[in-house]
Amino acid sequence: MGPAELETPVPVVDLDRLEANIEKMQAYCNLHGLRLRPHIKTHKSAQIAKMQINRGAVGLTCQKIREAEVMEDAGFTDLLLSYPQVGVGRVSRLAWLARRINLSLYVDGEVSFETATQAAAAAEKTIGIWIDFDSGAFRTGVQTPEDAARLAKSVDEHPFLIFVGLATYPLLPRSADFYAEFVALWGRPVGFSGAGTPTAWTAHETKGLTEVRQGTYVFHDRSTVGDGSATLDECAYHVLSTVIARPTSTRAILDAGSKSLTSDRVSPSGGDGFGLILEYPDLSIVRLYEEHAVVSVPDGHPGLSVGERVTILPNHVCPSVNLHDRLQTVRSGVVQAPIEITARGLNR
Amino acid sequence: MGPAELETPVPVVDLDRLEANIEKMQAYCNLHGLRLRPHIKTHKSAQIAKMQINRGAVGLTCQKIREAEVMEDAGFTDLLLSYPQVGVGRVSRLAWLARRINLSLYVDGEVSFETATQAAAAAEKTIGIWIDFDSGAFRTGVQTPEDAARLAKSVDEHPFLIFVGLATYPLLPRSADFYAEFVALWGRPVGFSGAGTPTAWTAHETKGLTEVRQGTYVFHDRSTVGDGSATLDECAYHVLSTVIARPTSTRAILDAGSKSLTSDRVSPSGGDGFGLILEYPDLSIVRLYEEHAVVSVPDGHPGLSVGERVTILPNHVCPSVNLHDRLQTVRSGVVQAPIEITARGLNR
Repeated sequence: MGPAELETPVPVVDLDRLEANIEKMQAYCNLHGLRLRPHIKTHKSAQIAKMQINRGAVGLTCQKIREAEVMEDAGFTDLLLSYPQVGVGRVSRLAWLARRINLSLYVDGEVSFETATQAAAAAEKTIGIWIDFDSGAFRTGVQTPEDAARLAKSVDEHPFLIFVGLATYPLLPRSADFYAEFVALWGRPVGFSGAGTPTAWTAHETKGLTEVRQGTYVFHDRSTVGDGSATLDECAYHVLSTVIARPTSTRAILDAGSKSLTSDRVSPSGGDGFGLILEYPDLSIVRLYEEHAVVSVPDGHPGLSVGERVTILPNHVCPSVNLHDRLQTVRSGVVQAPIEITARGLNR
Repeated sequence: MGPAELETPVPVVDLDRLEANIEKMQAYCNLHGLRLRPHIKTHKSAQIAKMQINRGAVGLTCQKIREAEVMEDAGFTDLLLSYPQVGVGRVSRLAWLARRINLSLYVDGEVSFETATQAAAAAEKTIGIWIDFDSGAFRTGVQTPEDAARLAKSVDEHPFLIFVGLATYPLLPRSADFYAEFVALWGRPVGFSGAGTPTAWTAHETKGLTEVRQGTYVFHDRSTVGDGSATLDECAYHVLSTVIARPTSTRAILDAGSKSLTSDRVSPSGGDGFGLILEYPDLSIVRLYEEHAVVSVPDGHPGLSVGERVTILPNHVCPSVNLHDRLQTVRSGVVQAPIEITARGLNR
């Protein structure tokens, strides 16, 4: 069976490209002596995580505890939660994980520090701690090297916590400055973990970096093509869609909407609209409804007749994957066994 | 157990409000002699569909065949697919449905007409047909009353198809003009079905209207509050979230991102940002990551300390529901049994 026989809209992964992407990132990390701890938020799949570990990844990065629980259940033994853990309800779940696997956590302040100490004490096991710092995402993380050093000292002095190093997202030129200032205060080098596929191929230029947590590179998407970190030929994930209507000569309607592609916009320079139609890169998906994509078509354009199938490269692959229960796969034009999205929707 | 004990981020439905919303829309339709055939795309739940039918809804509206298959399996016997059906693969599935239930379909042109005739022939049963017309969504549907009449004639002459009437989304003043022009051509009144919660309460002013297919009204959201079709007190669906970080005095980070809320913007006049924080309606969620919401906080603002829980009204409830596997419910402050989102993610 070929992908043309799959009912649409359907997410399809090219296995050759997926494997090549995993191999390429691992080879890059090996060449530069960087440990690769891929972020599973992109694929949420134990099967793809296994491919990454088998190629040489040192462990996995998860965002939410439930993702880590699923990966622990699938047999993975070294997990980082790159997310501040807050709340009493989390302590027992973190302790449960810490007893079974090598668990590392983010600490960015008093509350996540308290949660980590309580979890380690409850588990009676050590937990590795990365100090989260803000390098320009304006998201979580301590703001100054001085704050990082104060927090690192508290961690270092705690009997159950192991201070591993500093971690940030995304990896930007100023990340290296922050790390260097920290090391000057701390007196010796520590671990240094960065992330973000857009800056993945220049990560080795970041002085002191020891580890990376890329996610999107397994599939790539219109955003990573737009920022130059991938080519169109490296994109391994597409949504196949069918033209369901041609109400006018200048409008075509596809059966993939925001419930297949997400309404995420492309960032930052990948073009407009809600995804790239590979067969008609000149056309734009100008509007998305939940189950409809509206394509603007120049009058007289010969393509997009009703029933025609097209291949959409989503703007942002991670939330698109998270809409589906499984991914169809293809190799050399032949449909293979699907990949279950094991941790789909698990955000607690 | 109260909702404060649920781990976040978590979608929570207030059952009293849900029931009141269902009751209010049904009472409105009863008062004005409109048949209500609610769209299940909002809740994708057999349990909520049953509440709607029990109050007096005449049947259900589904977008995709898989949704209808799930609703057939749950025991519903009158289903409309308000979506052009295209492709050979769909014929046998539509026939399967037509043999078991009262099935109606949209026809908007030659291909969906062919699909409907083939499905009816394969089922050896009649199928009700609505002619889909474009009243200003610029989505699917025929463009002129003349085209509608031509298509209606083909349907009317087919032994297995029953011409029911005209259907459109959204319901706008021009919808009534289109219908009136059609009736002038056709020579007698036919069914007339409209949809869209924003214009739901003035639907009775649309001359000739016989049926409505509202969806969002069961929960409402920031968009329907923004357009005046609901009050904040009628909103039955919220996402509970926790402040996980306060990296600076002007920034708070919540644990609900685009994988809990969607990145849909509010339309058209409901405000900016990615959801309304009920406890702090003056604050704005300025940016969403997959699992983070970034809230801009005025310096010195007393709220949003780490660990504090907040209640978010999403911009658009339908795609938010579709991210979760089940909805937690609450009545009078006490957590009740969850509602399974039976048709979650089913878009084929």
